Amino acid sequence: MRILGIDPGTVNLGYGIVDDGEKMQMVNCGVLSFPRNARLEERLRSAYQGLSQIIAKHHPDEVAIEEPFAGRNIRSALAIGRAQAIAILVAANQRLPVYRYSPTQVKQQVTSYGRSDKEQVQEMVRMLLGLDESPQPSDASDALAVAICHIQQSRLNKWLANEG
Amino acid sequence: MRILGIDPGTVNLGYGIVDDGEKMQMVNCGVLSFPRNARLEERLRSAYQGLSQIIAKHHPDEVAIEEPFAGRNIRSALAIGRAQAIAILVAANQRLPVYRYSPTQVKQQVTSYGRSDKEQVQEMVRMLLGLDESPQPSDASDALAVAICHIQQSRLNKWLANEG
Repeated sequence: MRILGIDPGTVNLGYGIVDDGEKMQMVNCGVLSFPRNARLEERLRSAYQGLSQIIAKHHPDEVAIEEPFAGRNIRSALAIGRAQAIAILVAANQRLPVYRYSPTQVKQQVTSYGRSDKEQVQEMVRMLLGLDESPQPSDASDALAVAICHIQQSRLNKWLANEG
Repeated sequence: MRILGIDPGTVNLGYGIVDDGEKMQMVNCGVLSFPRNARLEERLRSAYQGLSQIIAKHHPDEVAIEEPFAGRNIRSALAIGRAQAIAILVAANQRLPVYRYSPTQVKQQVTSYGRSDKEQVQEMVRMLLGLDESPQPSDASDALAVAICHIQQSRLNKWLANEG
């Protein structure tokens, strides 16, 4: 089972691909960046094309997207809604199952604690994937965290179903 | 010149197609509806597909989208950002020029007054398009208003360029 994790931002969109087998294994990760001074339609189109190419190349089975923290600002909530919509649409257009997780869920699944700081999450991502160094930039590591969160949650769901 | 106007909502998305010649003429209008209880990814995919089909059928030259009024609510701003992103993306993916107008701009261009009420805008849409009755539902009429706004603005820009 191959999971594409996405951390949808409006300037940087992090992605991370993780295979779930005996151990979890990182396949790829990175960041799509959209220049702030580009027109909105170009930024959205680049995000859509970039994610489509990642899916075409790596063939994930499922997509996990972090529900963005919208903050208190209406303008940023509008922008974040846009970034999230593109990520969801790319997956839905390819008929891939989409799962969404809140920032708290990601922290809980990755570090067993919902209020961990960003560095603790990145260190756990590094350890769980057996990497020597934490993937950079941090948005890529955040996207891997979403993929790991989904794998842990799926394992838990399977275990609960078998116990039931 | 054929304009597709879009009023992007999260439950109802209004569209209206207007030809700009000697007189403005309505080609088509309507509403795409997305059941509230459908999954978010299905709603976004339906919006994307629905708008793509409208463009494939009517071949607009340009797309005018109303910048949504986000209100004071973070949740609704997130949702509106999503709807707007899909509308922009459909146009950008087809390489159609996208223009965005605020609600105030639409009112100003259609009724010459930025603080007109919804009914006044609808009545002007009906008159400008030479229709016997106001197009229903109102989201369709709102989308026609955005298309008309873009046509008026383009005429003004052309006139100003010639005067200069």
